[in-house]
Amino acid sequence: MTPQPNPEVGAAVKAADRAHVFHSWSAQELIDPLAVAGAEGSYFWDYDGRRYLDFTSGLVYTNIGYQHPKVVAAIQEQAARMTTFAPAFAVEARSEAARLIAERTPGDLDKIFFTNGGADAIEHALRMARLHTGRPKVLSAYRSYHGGTQQAVNVTGDPRRWASDSGTAGVVRFWAPFLYRSRFYAETEEQECARALEHLETTIAFEGPSTVAAIVLETIPGTAGIMPPPAGYLAGVRELCDKYGIVFVLDEVMAGFGRTGTWFAADLYDVVPDLMTFAKGVNSGYVPLGGVAISGAIADTFGKRPYPGGLTYSGHPLACAAAVATIGVMAEEGVVENAAALGASVVGPGLRELAERHPSVGEVRGTGMFWALELVRNPETREPLVPYNAAGEANAPMAAFAAAAKEAGVWPFVNMNRTHVVPPCNTSEAELKEGLAALDTALSVADGYVE
Amino acid sequence: MTPQPNPEVGAAVKAADRAHVFHSWSAQELIDPLAVAGAEGSYFWDYDGRRYLDFTSGLVYTNIGYQHPKVVAAIQEQAARMTTFAPAFAVEARSEAARLIAERTPGDLDKIFFTNGGADAIEHALRMARLHTGRPKVLSAYRSYHGGTQQAVNVTGDPRRWASDSGTAGVVRFWAPFLYRSRFYAETEEQECARALEHLETTIAFEGPSTVAAIVLETIPGTAGIMPPPAGYLAGVRELCDKYGIVFVLDEVMAGFGRTGTWFAADLYDVVPDLMTFAKGVNSGYVPLGGVAISGAIADTFGKRPYPGGLTYSGHPLACAAAVATIGVMAEEGVVENAAALGASVVGPGLRELAERHPSVGEVRGTGMFWALELVRNPETREPLVPYNAAGEANAPMAAFAAAAKEAGVWPFVNMNRTHVVPPCNTSEAELKEGLAALDTALSVADGYVE
Repeated sequence: MTPQPNPEVGAAVKAADRAHVFHSWSAQELIDPLAVAGAEGSYFWDYDGRRYLDFTSGLVYTNIGYQHPKVVAAIQEQAARMTTFAPAFAVEARSEAARLIAERTPGDLDKIFFTNGGADAIEHALRMARLHTGRPKVLSAYRSYHGGTQQAVNVTGDPRRWASDSGTAGVVRFWAPFLYRSRFYAETEEQECARALEHLETTIAFEGPSTVAAIVLETIPGTAGIMPPPAGYLAGVRELCDKYGIVFVLDEVMAGFGRTGTWFAADLYDVVPDLMTFAKGVNSGYVPLGGVAISGAIADTFGKRPYPGGLTYSGHPLACAAAVATIGVMAEEGVVENAAALGASVVGPGLRELAERHPSVGEVRGTGMFWALELVRNPETREPLVPYNAAGEANAPMAAFAAAAKEAGVWPFVNMNRTHVVPPCNTSEAELKEGLAALDTALSVADGYVE
Repeated sequence: MTPQPNPEVGAAVKAADRAHVFHSWSAQELIDPLAVAGAEGSYFWDYDGRRYLDFTSGLVYTNIGYQHPKVVAAIQEQAARMTTFAPAFAVEARSEAARLIAERTPGDLDKIFFTNGGADAIEHALRMARLHTGRPKVLSAYRSYHGGTQQAVNVTGDPRRWASDSGTAGVVRFWAPFLYRSRFYAETEEQECARALEHLETTIAFEGPSTVAAIVLETIPGTAGIMPPPAGYLAGVRELCDKYGIVFVLDEVMAGFGRTGTWFAADLYDVVPDLMTFAKGVNSGYVPLGGVAISGAIADTFGKRPYPGGLTYSGHPLACAAAVATIGVMAEEGVVENAAALGASVVGPGLRELAERHPSVGEVRGTGMFWALELVRNPETREPLVPYNAAGEANAPMAAFAAAAKEAGVWPFVNMNRTHVVPPCNTSEAELKEGLAALDTALSVADGYVE
C-alpha cells in the first residue's frame, strides 16, 4: 500500500494511452489522463508515488473499495475453475449470483437477466416494458443518466443525450421533484412532491395512458445531482403506474448495492418497481456486470413467448463469481451498515458543517455514501457556480475547485456545478474526515468565485 | 480434465437457474438449460460426467478454447494487481491491450475505444459515423447480426430484430451477396458480386448519398450463415464509400481474432474499413470486452470536440489483461496459423466429403475455423430443411439433427436450417476428426428428412 515511484513505467503507460486509447466522453486531444499505478481500499496512486483518497469510487462503482482480498481471491478461484461459459447453460456462479441478488431485491423481482453493465440493462428493461405492455412510449426524467448506448442515452436527461437524439423515437421527458431548483414553484417538499406527481399525471394524460409503456427513474438520481426524492413521490409514481397499467422501472445502477446505506435505494422508500436495473456495486465493478431484476408478471410474459434480446456474456461466470463474493463481503463486513452509520454520523454532519462556513455551498443532499454539494456563485439567487454544461473558461471555477481538492490529496467527483461525495461504502471514519478536511481547503477556492 | 459425476450439485445449480436466471433469446418456461460442471480446451462436461466436444466455441468466442493456463494466470495476476480502474485514467493493461490490437488492425485503425461487448461496439461505431458525417442513415444487410441492444439489433438483418423495429429510425436494409440463395438471379460469383454492388449503389442513390452516414457489414456474416463474400465485393463497397463520403464499418465481432485463419477477416480481402468492431475472440471471452478500432480521420473528428459516448467499464483492466494474454498466446502458439492450416487441410475437405455422402447438405462454406453447412430438404430446389425462423414442430428436423450430434458427443452450433462448424481456433486435428465423425452420424438423421 506504500506507493513506489516509477516514473519511467508511468511515461510508457501514458504514451501508449495517448497513442492508442480512445477515451469516453472526451475531446481526445484536450485530455491528459493521469497514469495510475495502483489502488487499494479507498486510495489510489500514480507513478510519481502521489496518493489520492478516492471520493469518487471510480465512477461510483467500487462500493467495497479497490482490491478487496476476498473478492480478488474469488476471481482467481473462478478463473482457475471456469472463466467463461455461454449464456444458454446453467452454471454454478451464475445461478448463485442470481439467487443472492433475487434474495435482496424488493418484492417479487426474483428473475435476473444479466447484462454487461448499466446501459444494456436499461436497453433490455425498456424492451421488456414495451413488449409486456404493447405500448410504444417511455417517460423519463430530465436531470437523469441511464447509460451510453443509443436507447439508454436517449432516455437520459442531461446534455450527453443531445448528440444522440435523432434516430430514436418514443421517449417523453418530464420533470422529477428537486426542491432546491423546483420547476414547480414549490416552497416545501410536500408541495414539490404533490406538484411533481400532478405534472407527471398530466403528462401521462396528454401523451395518452394507452401509449405509455414505462416510467423510468433513478430511485435517487446519481450523476445528475444526488437528489433524494421527497417522501411519497415514488409511492405516488407507483400508484400512477398501477392506475394506468404502466411498467415502473427503477434504475439502481448507481444507487444500488449499499450506496445509500441500504441494499437498494428503493428500500428507503418502501417501493417495489416492476423492473429494476443494476450494475456497478453488484460486484464493485471488479468484472463488468449489470442486469435487470424482473417481476413475476413480466417474467411470465416471456414464459412461453421468447424474450427477443440477449448477449454473449449474459451471466458471465467470472463476473457472477465476483458478485457472489462481493455480496458475501458486504454482508459479512457490514458494508451497507457502515455506509448508513458513517453517512449519518460523519459525512452528513461534516458536509453540513462545511456548508455553514463556505458560502459557495448552496445545498447539501444525500444519504449513506451518496452525497452532493451544490456549488453556487450566489447563495441567495442559487446561481450555479458555473453555467449548465459549461466547458473551457466558463468552467474555470469548478476546475479550480477540483485542482485544489487533488492538491489536498482527495480525488473529487465533479459534474457541472456540483461535487459529489461518493467514497467506497466501507471507507473508515478517519478516511472520511481526511477527505472532508481536503474538501474544506478546496471549498475555500470555490468561495473565491462567490459574488 | 476427467469429468467427475456430481449430480447433486448439478441439480442444485439447475434448480437455482430455473428459479432465478432469465435467459437470453428464450421462452423461459420452454427451455431446459444443461448444467455445465467444467470445461477445458475444446471440451466441456456436465454433472453426470458426460463430455462434449465443443463445435460452437461457446457463442463463437472461445477462440483459444476453455481455460488456457496462460490466460487464466494473467487474469489471476491482474486481479492481484488491479482488478478495475475508471476509464478516464491511463492504466497499463488498457494501454498495452490497445497497442497490441492497433498493431494488428488493418490500415490506420490505430485508436481503440473499448466497450463491454460487440453490441455496444456497434452502438458506438454507428454514433461515431453519424457524427463524423453529419448524416442520419445507416445501411445494413439482411442476413446479418450485430448485437442485442436497441440500435445494434435494429441494424441486424434476422428475425431477432422484429420485436425492436419501432422506436428506431434511420436504418435502411439491403441485400449482400450470397450466391447459393442469390437475390440477384446470379449464376456465378462474379455475377453475384457485380449485381450486389449495383444493388447497393442503386440503394444509395435512391436513399440519397448525402443522407447515408455508414454502411455496416460483417466482413464474413456469422450467425446469419458464414457467407464469405465473393472476391471484389468488399473492395467494391470500399469504393462506393469513398465515392459518396460514407463511413465503412466492418463488424469483426465474430470473424475477428483468428476465426477465419487470419487475424481479421478483412485481411483475407485486403480491405480497410473506417471503423472496425471487435469482441469475443479479442480475449476469448474470458472477461467481457469489445471495442471499436477507429481510423485517424474519425479519431480527428473527436480531437477537439468531445465524443458523446462512454461507459464505466471502458478499457476494464481485467478484461484488457486477458486480451493482452490472449493475443500473446495466439501469437506464440500459432493459433491463427492453426486455424488456417487445419481449416484448409481437415475441416474444409472433411465437410465437403460429408456433403458428398449426405443429401441433406446443400452447401459447404467457410474458411479457417468458420464453416457452415446449409441443410436442405431438397438439394435441387435448395428448400431449407426447416422454414425461415421455424419453431416447435416445424423445427423438428433441426432439433433431431442437434440431438443426434450431442448423442454422438459433439455440441453443434445450430441456427435455422444450418449447422456451423466453429470450434476453438486451436482445436487439434484429432479433435476435429472426432467432431466430423459425430457430424457424420447426425447428418444421417437429417438425411431422413430429405424428400
